[in-house]
Amino acid sequence: MAYQALTEQTIIDYIKSRPALERVFPSEATLIAKEVGDGNLNMVYIVQNAVAPHQSAVVKQALPYLRILGEAWALTRERMRFETQALLQYNRLTPGLAPAIYDHDDEMSLVVMENLNQHLIMRKALVARQRLPHFADHISTFMARNLFFTSDLYLTGLEKKTLQAQYINPHLNKIQEDFVFTNPLMESPENQWNPLVDDEVQRVRTDSALKIAAAEMKASYMTHAQALIHSDLHTGSLMVNADDTRVIDPEFAFYGPMGFDVGAVLENLILNCLAHYGHTADPDVRAEYQHYLLAMVGAVWQQFAQKFETLWVENNKGELAPPQYWNYPGGKEAFAEFRRRYLLNLLRDTAGHGGCKMLRRMMGVVSVWDISSIEDGSKRAIAERLAIRIGARWLVERHSINTVDDLVAIVQDEMAGTQA
Amino acid sequence: MAYQALTEQTIIDYIKSRPALERVFPSEATLIAKEVGDGNLNMVYIVQNAVAPHQSAVVKQALPYLRILGEAWALTRERMRFETQALLQYNRLTPGLAPAIYDHDDEMSLVVMENLNQHLIMRKALVARQRLPHFADHISTFMARNLFFTSDLYLTGLEKKTLQAQYINPHLNKIQEDFVFTNPLMESPENQWNPLVDDEVQRVRTDSALKIAAAEMKASYMTHAQALIHSDLHTGSLMVNADDTRVIDPEFAFYGPMGFDVGAVLENLILNCLAHYGHTADPDVRAEYQHYLLAMVGAVWQQFAQKFETLWVENNKGELAPPQYWNYPGGKEAFAEFRRRYLLNLLRDTAGHGGCKMLRRMMGVVSVWDISSIEDGSKRAIAERLAIRIGARWLVERHSINTVDDLVAIVQDEMAGTQA
Repeated sequence: MAYQALTEQTIIDYIKSRPALERVFPSEATLIAKEVGDGNLNMVYIVQNAVAPHQSAVVKQALPYLRILGEAWALTRERMRFETQALLQYNRLTPGLAPAIYDHDDEMSLVVMENLNQHLIMRKALVARQRLPHFADHISTFMARNLFFTSDLYLTGLEKKTLQAQYINPHLNKIQEDFVFTNPLMESPENQWNPLVDDEVQRVRTDSALKIAAAEMKASYMTHAQALIHSDLHTGSLMVNADDTRVIDPEFAFYGPMGFDVGAVLENLILNCLAHYGHTADPDVRAEYQHYLLAMVGAVWQQFAQKFETLWVENNKGELAPPQYWNYPGGKEAFAEFRRRYLLNLLRDTAGHGGCKMLRRMMGVVSVWDISSIEDGSKRAIAERLAIRIGARWLVERHSINTVDDLVAIVQDEMAGTQA
Repeated sequence: MAYQALTEQTIIDYIKSRPALERVFPSEATLIAKEVGDGNLNMVYIVQNAVAPHQSAVVKQALPYLRILGEAWALTRERMRFETQALLQYNRLTPGLAPAIYDHDDEMSLVVMENLNQHLIMRKALVARQRLPHFADHISTFMARNLFFTSDLYLTGLEKKTLQAQYINPHLNKIQEDFVFTNPLMESPENQWNPLVDDEVQRVRTDSALKIAAAEMKASYMTHAQALIHSDLHTGSLMVNADDTRVIDPEFAFYGPMGFDVGAVLENLILNCLAHYGHTADPDVRAEYQHYLLAMVGAVWQQFAQKFETLWVENNKGELAPPQYWNYPGGKEAFAEFRRRYLLNLLRDTAGHGGCKMLRRMMGVVSVWDISSIEDGSKRAIAERLAIRIGARWLVERHSINTVDDLVAIVQDEMAGTQA
């Protein structure tokens, strides 16, 4: 149907009109709907069967952004297409690691999906020092499968470029290009930072080696069409509980560098680790949980790299370097060395992108709740100062990173001197 | 009008029906047309005013490729769209360095352009040991302007991605992906090589360092969307005379790595240089012209790099790293260092892509006329053996290349031991 913004009243008839939703709600059910979103760009409704509330769904609809007409309206509507098609892709490649998609309607700019009411936003779970025994396994599977199966390592050239053409996403790209790589590192009116770390912020903004490195990472983001990446894979885009992990909100999805996704996961774990200088007063409890998180960083990378490489060995169907290319004495070892170098470059990209993203959270327009929720500015500054130093070193030292232990060692090295 | 293949007869009425061509041919003129193409995929007509033959044009029309229906038909037709829009782009950015475009008709899959009847295909000119005193200036301008002005260094992110979306060209890409980077380096039935250099060919196909390096260059070709490249910029795509240089046949154009274009120009000069072991018997005459060509290699790169950098300094309007990003004490020097590293990486990409392309010409399905026209197989083998050795070294040693002199030194080093 032609676009119209739904309400808590009109959504019921809409749901009843959709054949695909008959498997979610019996046709005779009395449905109730409640809007739970922030209402700026998207409306988010929870729809439930009044007498069987476990029968429920989330409806996410893009709103026209009324304050700015024209191009911004197209942006608002089109972002739902990227989100929907990426969620459908995740359901195909990694079912159970994204919300199940029940229905979608591009005309209406909406998607109907599983209600994840047994999950917490991951940042909240980590600030509460929850244990997530399956997270490293889940997120490494999610990344390995979605990145590998959309790359030139698996797809034919034609398949890859056809998929890539469905994710030309320049308006959303620009948000990341500006607000991750550029604006935080220069004077820009929207930047925010804690005055107590102003010395670190100014040092970063005038550190030529760092500025050059960040520009190189931005060039990678703008030109390196390696795989279909989520492109906003922080711990606010992850819904978790002790058993389960779900990736949400992929409206930034496009063909970009794999390291931007892997780096987002790792750096968000580091930022949460540092946030416990503010959230966890008992030094023993804090140190223990920080150790847990740093071990998780290592596990995420190790499991990701192992799964990615196994997928590659078992499914080398892409046109980049097919099996017959390695069919000569010594070719097996050469293919192994090619994979080793590919993954090493990916780790170094992860360090560079992760470093940039750590910095932007400390001195750009978007902070992270893990740290911004520390009310005591001086305690918050402990985490922020460390995040800046660690982010800078991940970025500038990326070419000498050889294992994930090198990344963790930088974190431990900077944390070692901290009095908190 | 709906597509129909023109003939020497029907083309006259077609020309007369096109308002854009009134500036080429007076309406009362008696036109004559002659088909001069090879007739496999494209028809090429020269149309002239019978009484004023200087009034002339070339009409290039894509043919349906009748032997394979379906997808290949689409390929044939669509390639003319890529060629036409790239030629129009060259006319905007580098007028005088491509044929002037008088008219185009996407429905008819044809383009009408300047008749370059005062020019020679560059390979022929070089085999004839012609001097081209303006070539380095012309081709460096062509590459610097077309690559710079389509990159993230000049365009906004939105502009760049919008242009990129017009050049999604997977069918033509695949031809280069397979026949430049992969098939020549493994057993593939279409490969051809001189039995006298079989030892070199087999050595290359089992050299693991080289195979890994070639796979890395292929990954660059498949993923590095740096600028709108011609993607087939060999000396058969260049029409020259002592005063003039024109770039033709950009049907492979897409967003790819700049080094693929620069590498194509340099390696074709090297292959011609080596071809003179077969074409030029007098050792002094030969050495003198070879020296001339190697100096041209240096001049093309030097002038390209200088022009590219000047364009960047004077037109830093892209979103990659804008002027205000470098606005701090030391920022000017940092921007200079960023440019230096960018161009160094481009030179190394040039070496890698140029090396791959030298190898493919010696052991793949497509040779170069410069060398294939040497009738004496043993003389041809001198050039071929050197080309393989030089190509392999450009590719494998690319990370230690620092100046174009390093590339030329590899050529001179390999040529030094040659008895011919």
